Amino acid sequence: MSIVGTDIGIVRTQYFYSTRPLVLESGSVLAELVLAYETYGVLNANRDNAILVLHALSGDAHVAGRHSPDEKHPGWWDDMVGPGKAFDTNRYFVICSNVIGGCKGSSGPISVNPDTQSPWQADFPIVTIQDMVAAQTHLIDALGIEQLAAVAGGSMGGFQALAWMARYPNRVRKAILLATSAAHSAQAIAWNAIGRHAIMSDPRWCQGFYRADAPPHAGLAIARMIGHITYLSDISLAQRFSQRYQHTTVPSYALADEFSVESYLTHQADKFNKRFDANSYLYITKAMDYWNVMQPGQSLGEALSSWQGHTLIISFDSDTLYPTSESVLIASALTENGASVESYELHSNAGHDAFLLESTAQTPLIAAFLRR
Amino acid sequence: MSIVGTDIGIVRTQYFYSTRPLVLESGSVLAELVLAYETYGVLNANRDNAILVLHALSGDAHVAGRHSPDEKHPGWWDDMVGPGKAFDTNRYFVICSNVIGGCKGSSGPISVNPDTQSPWQADFPIVTIQDMVAAQTHLIDALGIEQLAAVAGGSMGGFQALAWMARYPNRVRKAILLATSAAHSAQAIAWNAIGRHAIMSDPRWCQGFYRADAPPHAGLAIARMIGHITYLSDISLAQRFSQRYQHTTVPSYALADEFSVESYLTHQADKFNKRFDANSYLYITKAMDYWNVMQPGQSLGEALSSWQGHTLIISFDSDTLYPTSESVLIASALTENGASVESYELHSNAGHDAFLLESTAQTPLIAAFLRR
Repeated sequence: MSIVGTDIGIVRTQYFYSTRPLVLESGSVLAELVLAYETYGVLNANRDNAILVLHALSGDAHVAGRHSPDEKHPGWWDDMVGPGKAFDTNRYFVICSNVIGGCKGSSGPISVNPDTQSPWQADFPIVTIQDMVAAQTHLIDALGIEQLAAVAGGSMGGFQALAWMARYPNRVRKAILLATSAAHSAQAIAWNAIGRHAIMSDPRWCQGFYRADAPPHAGLAIARMIGHITYLSDISLAQRFSQRYQHTTVPSYALADEFSVESYLTHQADKFNKRFDANSYLYITKAMDYWNVMQPGQSLGEALSSWQGHTLIISFDSDTLYPTSESVLIASALTENGASVESYELHSNAGHDAFLLESTAQTPLIAAFLRR
Repeated sequence: MSIVGTDIGIVRTQYFYSTRPLVLESGSVLAELVLAYETYGVLNANRDNAILVLHALSGDAHVAGRHSPDEKHPGWWDDMVGPGKAFDTNRYFVICSNVIGGCKGSSGPISVNPDTQSPWQADFPIVTIQDMVAAQTHLIDALGIEQLAAVAGGSMGGFQALAWMARYPNRVRKAILLATSAAHSAQAIAWNAIGRHAIMSDPRWCQGFYRADAPPHAGLAIARMIGHITYLSDISLAQRFSQRYQHTTVPSYALADEFSVESYLTHQADKFNKRFDANSYLYITKAMDYWNVMQPGQSLGEALSSWQGHTLIISFDSDTLYPTSESVLIASALTENGASVESYELHSNAGHDAFLLESTAQTPLIAAFLRR
């Protein structure tokens, strides 16, 4: 891919610690809050050039650059964030924080419960997308930013962007929604639910109070495998794997794994188990399944009625998890509200993952939208 | 649904027992063979009015009617098989046998290994779609049928119909292929593979030698849940469940199941565990994943080059498991071969399951095709 711009170099994760109580939608209160976050570029004197990037289910605060020169892979959206890139750090101060409920440094099931000084595990309160965003407002407040130039995210990142638009419309000027939806569909709930079922029926889950050295790897592996197939497309899977065997050209006539796609899934699941907490997977997928920008009884237009900003919406034609039809609902509601919307369906064989991969196609749209 | 025709009444399962050795594709030999089968209608004097119906992954020989007056549900394709129905038992002698590798009376992992007089379990040899069909030829031979009027099946039933067309073209006059494909796609393999992974990582699986009273229910439940979502469509799931809770109108803010679609999946998984063997699920999905009507190096046209019969192909626009594009490949290859093909894409929101549910739309197409 020929991405314009240069790499951001070495970055570090910072930790925002706050004792300002966070009242959750459930009524529970987080008395202490930690948010792991990274920033790129420079906040200007007017403090009005900040863009909050919002990550998806398995993402984290590490959007771009490397933590050390020998880090194997850069941040998860390195193609998109940096000097001269879609989110141009020569112009913007880009911020990303790990969501609450996550396991990458923010308050969540593996962080310490201040009451017990032990990890929360399954005692961590259930959080929603709206709670994740409420926590982000505490960070933005602490950074002295009154109004964000933009919020931007794909998938669950788009949910958070929509929550900003609905809840804090005066604190954001522009929103970028990629491969996302205004409410979780039954099918998307079902995939997450099966993943949760796999984790919670793993005997090592232990009602969520598992030993750190014996987590429910088998269950999380299955959840991740399911996720992977829903993030890809039938076309991309066919192109990459077809019906090939991993090690031979003939069938083994045995029950064991042998197809290339099976090796791929097993490899992805192993990698995920090394970097993600099973309880965190339960909490975040639950938040996604609750996701609905509409309050009970509200229409989508009503939910977004206070939003006066500009919105860029991008969907991908091979995304079956958050298909274009979901984006069309958002674009239509905003248009009916008289809000300014630009909406594109891009062609890609990459499925839902396109928002992470199709940087070349997204860059000019995002860059132009931000400059306007 | 307003299905023409009347119900078939009380039927019974029969058992074909043979000591004619069945040489499997793997090279293994089944020295004894049992096929559970049912028949409906009357074989005519010329023995040329037989239609072999071929079942899908979780199907069995019980296509239509009831085994007793108080049986709750009739056979799995009762809407389609009976006097005056699509497969009109006033005209045709309809046969269906449980596949080998199955768990509904035919030779498979829960049947008795004649060498040990104990259930085969995971010692049962791996079988392929072609092996299932080879076993069916033994039954058809025993019934004194030289040539079938038709073979018909949806999904894995369509795989078997295609195997008949490729391997035994002179023994079949017409083929009906519903919601099927000529080779298993990477995506379809992946879904089956994740299901197998769930079963085989259930500690109760015990390398396939589990106790009859302690089978790997948790693993099979996950496999079945995955299957169910791939058999439905996002539209049908949205219509049936949306984001509703099963027992309340407000979130529980707990990790436990609460969405209607979760209750549905759990219920379906429980039902499936009561009627299906986990090893059988492994064997049959493995056979599906190996499925390719083409020998290595063959084109689809070459694989079907000896087929001189007539073919009816139906696909459904919401089927993402075996989408219309798969049917188009088969229709194109047959057309290029100069064979007689009729091909339809029907509209349905029912997803892959449409071939089981859309009887009203399929009936006139199938009835007319059979009469021509």
